[in-house]
Amino acid sequence: MSCVFCAIVAGEAPAVRIYEADDYLGILDIRPFTPGHTLVIPKKHTVDLTDTPPETLAGMAVVGQRIARAARESGLHADGTNVAINDGKAAFQSVFHIHLHVVPRHDGDKLAFAKGMLLRRDPDREGSARLLRAALAQLDESAQE
Amino acid sequence: MSCVFCAIVAGEAPAVRIYEADDYLGILDIRPFTPGHTLVIPKKHTVDLTDTPPETLAGMAVVGQRIARAARESGLHADGTNVAINDGKAAFQSVFHIHLHVVPRHDGDKLAFAKGMLLRRDPDREGSARLLRAALAQLDESAQE
Ligand SMILES: [Zn+2]
Ligand SMILES: [Zn+2]
Repeated sequence: MSCVFCAIVAGEAPAVRIYEADDYLGILDIRPFTPGHTLVIPKKHTVDLTDTPPETLAGMAVVGQRIARAARESGLHADGTNVAINDGKAAFQSVFHIHLHVVPRHDGDKLAFAKGMLLRRDPDREGSARLLRAALAQLDESAQE
Repeated sequence: MSCVFCAIVAGEAPAVRIYEADDYLGILDIRPFTPGHTLVIPKKHTVDLTDTPPETLAGMAVVGQRIARAARESGLHADGTNVAINDGKAAFQSVFHIHLHVVPRHDGDKLAFAKGMLLRRDPDREGSARLLRAALAQLDESAQE
């Protein structure tokens, strides 16, 4: 399979999964800007904003919002998030299966963030994943109350 | 009125409008990273991803996709776009009325883009707006055929 995200969706390539729904998967970026940097991927392959159905994009945005809220409420204690789609090679898209980035941010982390964009690693990926999964489960529980 | 985007929505503050629908407005960023840098604003005031209804966010994303497609097909000849929400002060949000950035990009513009992030000006804002409006009208026509 030539698309790494399709391989991850099919369970044929490894990934740290933090969210799964019928049509979307949330995985940790392997080269994170900050701990908890997550990618929201539609399970069905499309390339970018030119060929992705609007309803798929709408769903991605809603999942992204959910993960952004979880990042704030989680043990990662994010104070905000950058949520972004890089649409096309010119815009720094590197995997040509559309995805949405959710990057947890902290007050005053401007320098750490810039450093993170160069280093792109998380010394405790599994720990970050656990915190996000726990916060997502908590959001689900609150919604059901 | 203390919120500049609410003032723009109400027609009480100036803006270069490129898109309007019942619930959303598309205006040029007054400090653009690149020519055609557009903000998609829901007309109803909310602050960030913590208080914006998911359906509002979904709609913003769909409008953003439309503008991203228009940027590619327009006389701006974008090769791609960065589409982003800065959620919270920690994530560089500067106007606390949620908005989505659509930033047209060109192949090999990495240096010009970095320069644009510092200069943040478009020598021909009205020209950029005309090109985007024309491309959006063209997209509408294609959809009706
Ligand atoms: Zn794929
Ligand atoms: Zn407002």
